[in-house]
Amino acid sequence: MAISFEILGKSAACSARAGRVTTPHGAFDTPAFMPVGTRGALKGLLPSDVAATGSQIILGNTYHLLLRPGPELVAQLGGLHGFMNWPGPILTDSGGYQVYSLGDTNTVTDDGVIFKSIVDGSRIELTPERSMDIQHQLGADIIMAFDDCPPSVDPRTSNETHRRLSAKRSKRSAEYDHNQRLDLANERTIRWLNRCAEFHAASGRSDRQALFGIVQGGTDLEKRTWSAEHVCAVDLPGYAIGGVAVGEGFAEIVSVVEHTAPLLPPDRPRYLMGVGYERDLVAAVRAGCDMFDCVLPTRNGRNANAFTPTGQLRLRNAQHAADERPIDPTCDCPACAGWGAEPKPFSRAYLRHLFQAGEMLGPILVSLHNVRHFQQLMLDIRACIREDAWSDLASRWPVVRPDADRSAPEGGGGE
Amino acid sequence: MAISFEILGKSAACSARAGRVTTPHGAFDTPAFMPVGTRGALKGLLPSDVAATGSQIILGNTYHLLLRPGPELVAQLGGLHGFMNWPGPILTDSGGYQVYSLGDTNTVTDDGVIFKSIVDGSRIELTPERSMDIQHQLGADIIMAFDDCPPSVDPRTSNETHRRLSAKRSKRSAEYDHNQRLDLANERTIRWLNRCAEFHAASGRSDRQALFGIVQGGTDLEKRTWSAEHVCAVDLPGYAIGGVAVGEGFAEIVSVVEHTAPLLPPDRPRYLMGVGYERDLVAAVRAGCDMFDCVLPTRNGRNANAFTPTGQLRLRNAQHAADERPIDPTCDCPACAGWGAEPKPFSRAYLRHLFQAGEMLGPILVSLHNVRHFQQLMLDIRACIREDAWSDLASRWPVVRPDADRSAPEGGGGE
Repeated sequence: MAISFEILGKSAACSARAGRVTTPHGAFDTPAFMPVGTRGALKGLLPSDVAATGSQIILGNTYHLLLRPGPELVAQLGGLHGFMNWPGPILTDSGGYQVYSLGDTNTVTDDGVIFKSIVDGSRIELTPERSMDIQHQLGADIIMAFDDCPPSVDPRTSNETHRRLSAKRSKRSAEYDHNQRLDLANERTIRWLNRCAEFHAASGRSDRQALFGIVQGGTDLEKRTWSAEHVCAVDLPGYAIGGVAVGEGFAEIVSVVEHTAPLLPPDRPRYLMGVGYERDLVAAVRAGCDMFDCVLPTRNGRNANAFTPTGQLRLRNAQHAADERPIDPTCDCPACAGWGAEPKPFSRAYLRHLFQAGEMLGPILVSLHNVRHFQQLMLDIRACIREDAWSDLASRWPVVRPDADRSAPEGGGGE
Repeated sequence: MAISFEILGKSAACSARAGRVTTPHGAFDTPAFMPVGTRGALKGLLPSDVAATGSQIILGNTYHLLLRPGPELVAQLGGLHGFMNWPGPILTDSGGYQVYSLGDTNTVTDDGVIFKSIVDGSRIELTPERSMDIQHQLGADIIMAFDDCPPSVDPRTSNETHRRLSAKRSKRSAEYDHNQRLDLANERTIRWLNRCAEFHAASGRSDRQALFGIVQGGTDLEKRTWSAEHVCAVDLPGYAIGGVAVGEGFAEIVSVVEHTAPLLPPDRPRYLMGVGYERDLVAAVRAGCDMFDCVLPTRNGRNANAFTPTGQLRLRNAQHAADERPIDPTCDCPACAGWGAEPKPFSRAYLRHLFQAGEMLGPILVSLHNVRHFQQLMLDIRACIREDAWSDLASRWPVVRPDADRSAPEGGGGE
């Protein structure tokens, strides 16, 4: 097995557990938050600075790296670890989600997906075998099965974000039957998982790269059950919950996660893909999830939105123009703690100026802060699991309370 | 006096000297290279990373900071040092050069200059007194006199870069007489210097901020002599050579600098403004100059041009697509040396990928490298002055040889 998973502590009050995953490129503590380095880089951040935020594992996007610079070149330059100079654990997704959400046109058949490159318009085919082959060349420690990503709820009844995504995915079908599409996706995902597992086993790389399966099923809990049973019938070192946080509300996310997580084997890491805001993470940890990824810290950082324990600050707002305070006085990131012999924080006023002037340093400082914010939350979550100190956690992080203000995440498409 | 200048070593073979300038915010070694932080930030670089390149003093642009966020706000937030979180020495220019090179329209009278803001189109007046007042609010350790910046050579006979700059400066005059314009600028610069010095002395800030005068005169050596005599008649803690590297060739730069530097008092730091490429710096150091600033390392870094001891690498070129080598194997910057327990360099192939993909990390890594390249050159220059090891220097840095390939710098306008 490429990875091992050790559970070091469990909550008595809920299903949360703290643990450690050991990979060929080192270990990471769980629950773990993985920042996203779509094109072989976390946007604007030196790998050394990423490591300093407490990030122990990062995510790369197969779809984007396939288009540019291509997996052959990455392999030639030492795989993704060597290429991007990140010696620690890496996870790559399968490319499936991006094909659906970013592909200009795509044809889905039982064999795979054909789409148009967003880089040069060329026609590209992605199949379970091709996704495995690419991920082998990228060489991440954890690789993901190629799945069929259906709309999570019926596009005719869902909210706008949903409709936009879903319309894209179903536009080739004049008479769309949501139920039927979910069933087809569910069944296809299992067939594709078996092809991925077979190809991966035959590659002889199972001792260096761990393949995770992905449970789909939208917001339909019965379909989630069916998917979980069939995915878990394939013996794999880890399992993921996909198709979540693509537009649903908090209650729907919690419902799916609380239903699905217990269906996955307790001795394997459970990865909730593309989630999310702080309270989503806490709810999912309580349901027994161990791994998370999301573009929120870096994407919002680039857009001048800074996370704090009480909610986001929109640093472009005029109210910050003369504010000498740091983003968060309790934070120890480079933006909030400063540097040098007598460290002083960077003020909100200065950060606002950087964004107003279009200076790169604004996105850099706020992204660094945001990633550290999420890693500090994970540190606190891991610390509180053994003691069941959930109310202490919520008092230190008001933003994690279920009634906290929250807008829809826009994760998942890579950045 | 706000600053003191100590000469620690002199070359026997030329006029080069190594020294140290002590300011209210710490000391810097000379010859010194000051990277440019136009809008209160070195583009894409954390101040801690700037300090790690060996940069001991940085430059801020009065013109840009006047327009945004405004000197009052900077003063309120602790001056430029506090605002941008740079505790070390800072120098600000007077805004004069930018008014001429960037101002959309400007009217020059004996009182000052009226121009249109490039940020919001508003009408702004800059006079010697106003420039001093703004620089007092910014609070830099070294501030520059407000000067009239004429075209350095006759716009009717000069090269294209020159003509473009010069046409802008002279477009209000139908019958342009270059000689007359230079004389007027020279005389006006002296009148304005006296107004600056008077205003600065009356402000009571002379013990905290050192005012430098600027010698003009274009490429006309007689006018340089006249200007130097009159500028140096005002007793100031330092003197600058302005109007150089605005489009002239290497030979012209050297001619002006070799002529002008010896006319400045030997016991005060000599600052050659806006210069330049490596061999320009070495030639100017040999002529007795002590301080330099240029946007080249950061501007070229953002454009994927990496400096090396043998010349620039254009990292976008296809030849680097699969090149595993670092920019410069002899360099110790974060891009070339790497990070972590087993540091490995970032490859040219990876850097090229970052630029091709439009990733911010490309400009960041190459800017860091370029600034370190210039600081490493200054370290080597300082080390070689006492020993007169100029040929050793040229063998380690082939790019400094007078016959080395060089294209025109595009410095001075801020970035």
